[in-house]
Amino acid sequence: MSTQPSKEFVTFPNPRPGRRYTITIDTDEFTALCPVTGQPDFATITLEYVPDTLCVELKSLKLYLWSYRNEGAFHEDVTNRIMDDLVKALDPLSITVTGDFNIRGGLRTRVEVSHSK
Amino acid sequence: MSTQPSKEFVTFPNPRPGRRYTITIDTDEFTALCPVTGQPDFATITLEYVPDTLCVELKSLKLYLWSYRNEGAFHEDVTNRIMDDLVKALDPLSITVTGDFNIRGGLRTRVEVSHSK
Amino acid sequence: MSTQPSKEFVTFPNPRPGRRYTITIDTDEFTALCPVTGQPDFATITLEYVPDTLCVELKSLKLYLWSYRNEGAFHEDVTNRIMDDLVKALDPLSITVTGDFNIRGGLRTRVEVSHSK
Amino acid sequence: MSTQPSKEFVTFPNPRPGRRYTITIDTDEFTALCPVTGQPDFATITLEYVPDTLCVELKSLKLYLWSYRNEGAFHEDVTNRIMDDLVKALDPLSITVTGDFNIRGGLRTRVEVSHSK
Amino acid sequence: MSTQPSKEFVTFPNPRPGRRYTITIDTDEFTALCPVTGQPDFATITLEYVPDTLCVELKSLKLYLWSYRNEGAFHEDVTNRIMDDLVKALDPLSITVTGDFNIRGGLRTRVEVSHSK
Amino acid sequence: MSTQPSKEFVTFPNPRPGRRYTITIDTDEFTALCPVTGQPDFATITLEYVPDTLCVELKSLKLYLWSYRNEGAFHEDVTNRIMDDLVKALDPLSITVTGDFNIRGGLRTRVEVSHSK
Amino acid sequence: MSTQPSKEFVTFPNPRPGRRYTITIDTDEFTALCPVTGQPDFATITLEYVPDTLCVELKSLKLYLWSYRNEGAFHEDVTNRIMDDLVKALDPLSITVTGDFNIRGGLRTRVEVSHSK
Amino acid sequence: MSTQPSKEFVTFPNPRPGRRYTITIDTDEFTALCPVTGQPDFATITLEYVPDTLCVELKSLKLYLWSYRNEGAFHEDVTNRIMDDLVKALDPLSITVTGDFNIRGGLRTRVEVSHSK
Amino acid sequence: MSTQPSKEFVTFPNPRPGRRYTITIDTDEFTALCPVTGQPDFATITLEYVPDTLCVELKSLKLYLWSYRNEGAFHEDVTNRIMDDLVKALDPLSITVTGDFNIRGGLRTRVEVSHSK
Amino acid sequence: MSTQPSKEFVTFPNPRPGRRYTITIDTDEFTALCPVTGQPDFATITLEYVPDTLCVELKSLKLYLWSYRNEGAFHEDVTNRIMDDLVKALDPLSITVTGDFNIRGGLRTRVEVSHSK
Repeated sequence: MSTQPSKEFVTFPNPRPGRRYTITIDTDEFTALCPVTGQPDFATITLEYVPDTLCVELKSLKLYLWSYRNEGAFHEDVTNRIMDDLVKALDPLSITVTGDFNIRGGLRTRVEVSHSK
Repeated sequence: MSTQPSKEFVTFPNPRPGRRYTITIDTDEFTALCPVTGQPDFATITLEYVPDTLCVELKSLKLYLWSYRNEGAFHEDVTNRIMDDLVKALDPLSITVTGDFNIRGGLRTRVEVSHSK
Repeated sequence: MSTQPSKEFVTFPNPRPGRRYTITIDTDEFTALCPVTGQPDFATITLEYVPDTLCVELKSLKLYLWSYRNEGAFHEDVTNRIMDDLVKALDPLSITVTGDFNIRGGLRTRVEVSHSK
Repeated sequence: MSTQPSKEFVTFPNPRPGRRYTITIDTDEFTALCPVTGQPDFATITLEYVPDTLCVELKSLKLYLWSYRNEGAFHEDVTNRIMDDLVKALDPLSITVTGDFNIRGGLRTRVEVSHSK
Repeated sequence: MSTQPSKEFVTFPNPRPGRRYTITIDTDEFTALCPVTGQPDFATITLEYVPDTLCVELKSLKLYLWSYRNEGAFHEDVTNRIMDDLVKALDPLSITVTGDFNIRGGLRTRVEVSHSK
Repeated sequence: MSTQPSKEFVTFPNPRPGRRYTITIDTDEFTALCPVTGQPDFATITLEYVPDTLCVELKSLKLYLWSYRNEGAFHEDVTNRIMDDLVKALDPLSITVTGDFNIRGGLRTRVEVSHSK
Repeated sequence: MSTQPSKEFVTFPNPRPGRRYTITIDTDEFTALCPVTGQPDFATITLEYVPDTLCVELKSLKLYLWSYRNEGAFHEDVTNRIMDDLVKALDPLSITVTGDFNIRGGLRTRVEVSHSK
Repeated sequence: MSTQPSKEFVTFPNPRPGRRYTITIDTDEFTALCPVTGQPDFATITLEYVPDTLCVELKSLKLYLWSYRNEGAFHEDVTNRIMDDLVKALDPLSITVTGDFNIRGGLRTRVEVSHSK
Repeated sequence: MSTQPSKEFVTFPNPRPGRRYTITIDTDEFTALCPVTGQPDFATITLEYVPDTLCVELKSLKLYLWSYRNEGAFHEDVTNRIMDDLVKALDPLSITVTGDFNIRGGLRTRVEVSHSK
Repeated sequence: MSTQPSKEFVTFPNPRPGRRYTITIDTDEFTALCPVTGQPDFATITLEYVPDTLCVELKSLKLYLWSYRNEGAFHEDVTNRIMDDLVKALDPLSITVTGDFNIRGGLRTRVEVSHSK
């Protein structure tokens, strides 16, 4: 398996495909660049999904999040993009992605995006 | 972009205009003057909104909140005013503004105002 | 304005009379006397209301709570009484009053009372 | 009033009999004996009820909980028994009793029982 | 009673068979092996169920969780398996099992599975 | 024993008079009046002492603290006074009294006074 | 080994007799009776000792603490007694015992006793 | 007494002039302007002093801190200045002033300054 | 590098050999077997050391702690053993190892061992 | 002033050069690459120093920490390096730098380095 940052997810078959259950993954190790100033931004990313036939493999999720490290990303846009990419790769029954961005100018921003079939 | 306190918001186009999702911004750096005694009041302000076509730009939000620094403002009134100004600027699908004011006379006051189209 | 304990509330006109919004006020500075033993009781009082045409002025609320300092008051009764007095003075769209009383005999008691038009 | 452990509750008339409101009482001072090993168990007990015509007097509740001190009691059974005894004594509009038992063998057990008319 | 790890549960009759009530048991002492690397994984397991005619005996639950100690187990699969085994043994009215797995590669994973008759 | 507020302490003989050990008692149920405005003040009082031949009886300490309920008391002065009274009654090997007063005008005040033979 | 409450400790040889190191044991499962009112008291007991040639066996410590369950015990006295009994049984290089007793009459009491060779 | 911001302190005589004891006052309601950008900064200020013959009156301390509201102030400089002004007004036996400044650019700064006779 | 449990440490040269500085590593993923009952024990292990010429490599430390997984280990003994093994491998200027063991029979045990050249 | 990552610090003259006082700055926005795997590491960095004639300017400190973003850095080495660079730039009376690195393989590492003239 690759150990380079990558926008591709590795998936594996849901071990209980007919049952609705929830998988929640969070990390405080997300960083991207501010598209305006070019300076680093930091966030905690949480994803919570009900799998259909596929689950996301943890290491590939880590590589995916790493792939934003040297890219510009607006708070609202990147949270939506992460969810869209997960929907494309997993086609889950439902999913919520939250980006909780560190304080800038005294303001803390949290973006929460959801999708369901 | 201005760096002076201002009642005008700068907005930018919602990057996912057809999707309902939530943006939450909070700060503990709000201060205004008590209209009765003229003395400083302090509060934590939280806004949570579902954007329609526009989002509020963070720096202009900071300048907006700064604009109350030397104005008199009652707790109940100023929380409503902040929400009205955001509704006028963003016309969001829904919005909630909360003002959580520091203890005065042993009493802590929180005002929560909501609006939806 | 008086600075003596008083069962009268001072009110002011709701600055947004047609809008449903919530005002929450709490204090850990409530004390009364136990009607059985005459000894002091202490509680945290929280009130949360949706104003109709009137709001309660903070200082008069403080003087009102002070008025129980040397009166006997059962936990269940005094929480109901505070709410009844606020309903009479403010006629709010809805209100909840909570009294959270300090441990006595290893037991902590919380009373929560609600009313709505 | 007795100061001995007792399975009898002392009650007093609900001061606002026609109004639905909630009384919550909790204590971390409950102990009984394990019926299998005879060794002491410890729990936090919470009761939350909507009174009809009667409320439970605090001191008698303390004496009631004390009465389990030297009795054998299974977690699931004793939580149900406490609720049944309170229902018999108070005939409340609704009631929930929770027993949160200390860790045994690395496992913490919580039992929550509810009843309503 | 055995004191060896075992996939068999010991049960006892529900002391209040006709009443819906909830039993919650949690432990931070679950460990299994990663099926890919063979290295130990650690998790907090919570089970919350409404018993029908049977309850699970605490010590046998401990021995059951112990039985995973030297087995390979994927996060998503093992949480489902624990619930399936409990459903088979207890046939509860409803049950939720949660596995909250320690950080690996900066990512924390939580799996929540539910079933009801 | 009296159940009225009183400036007199009841003492009992130290059960281990030749050994240096520490007794710490704290309460968040202290209230007095502001000598300037006449309005109630609230504080948490902590006392920590090494007894010589006498210990303070808990109930009399409660009655002592109660005796300030309707007296005017400056923060700095009352903390010193409580210590002086305890020194006079107990003549301890050493003692520290702390008064941690609730927020007034946004400012929280803590006074800590010590004495040793 | 006995499973009855007992004032006798079981000890085992210190596995590193020539080295100064610290063993700390705490429990929130201590209960005794108030010698004045006969009602149950509850406390958290902590012991921290540097063993010489002997260590205390955990189960016998549990049975020892259990032995106070139906005995009268003043806060100051019982904490000293627990330490004296441990000193007699273990003859440690040094030891500190702390009893942190639950709130009575709004007052929380902590007694800390130390001894060293 | 004035209710306007002022660099002058009001003092009162230490009620126990010959005794060393400590007064600690803190507030999270300090705000000044960044001398570089002109934008508001926020900090929590703590002062801890051992009075000699004078104590600082609380209200005048509040007015003093208010006086920085529309002045430029570097973190390191303003914390030193507050201490120097208190030393000049109170001539205390010892004093420590801490300024804990809100996050700017992801960095939180705390400045701690001490003085003693 | 091996990925099997092993009592051997991998070390690397201290990057600043002449400077006294501290490295602290902790993990809540330690488990061994109780030598009396054979059942699993769990602990949080913390090590804090001042390196001389060698540092411990993180992955080998993980494999070392893993090596206790199926061994019997008394609390007091295993904490001493971990320190002895680290002293042998690293010969540090000083080191402290703490084992904080999960509650058994209501008692939580913490063992702290230190060594210095 | 530059807005690019840089190993150069900007300094400014200590506003109180003859006085010993402490400046503490911390941030959870430090990230570098693991020199072995090339994958991102994250840490909280704290620096606490007593300035002599120079202080570090906040923005340049941010740019300095940013400069590690795409460099390989061992935990022990990078913490020492940050301190050495600050000592070279500021020549402070004393300084402590702490790097608190996120969990890897279940292990959390903290490195603390100090220097004084």
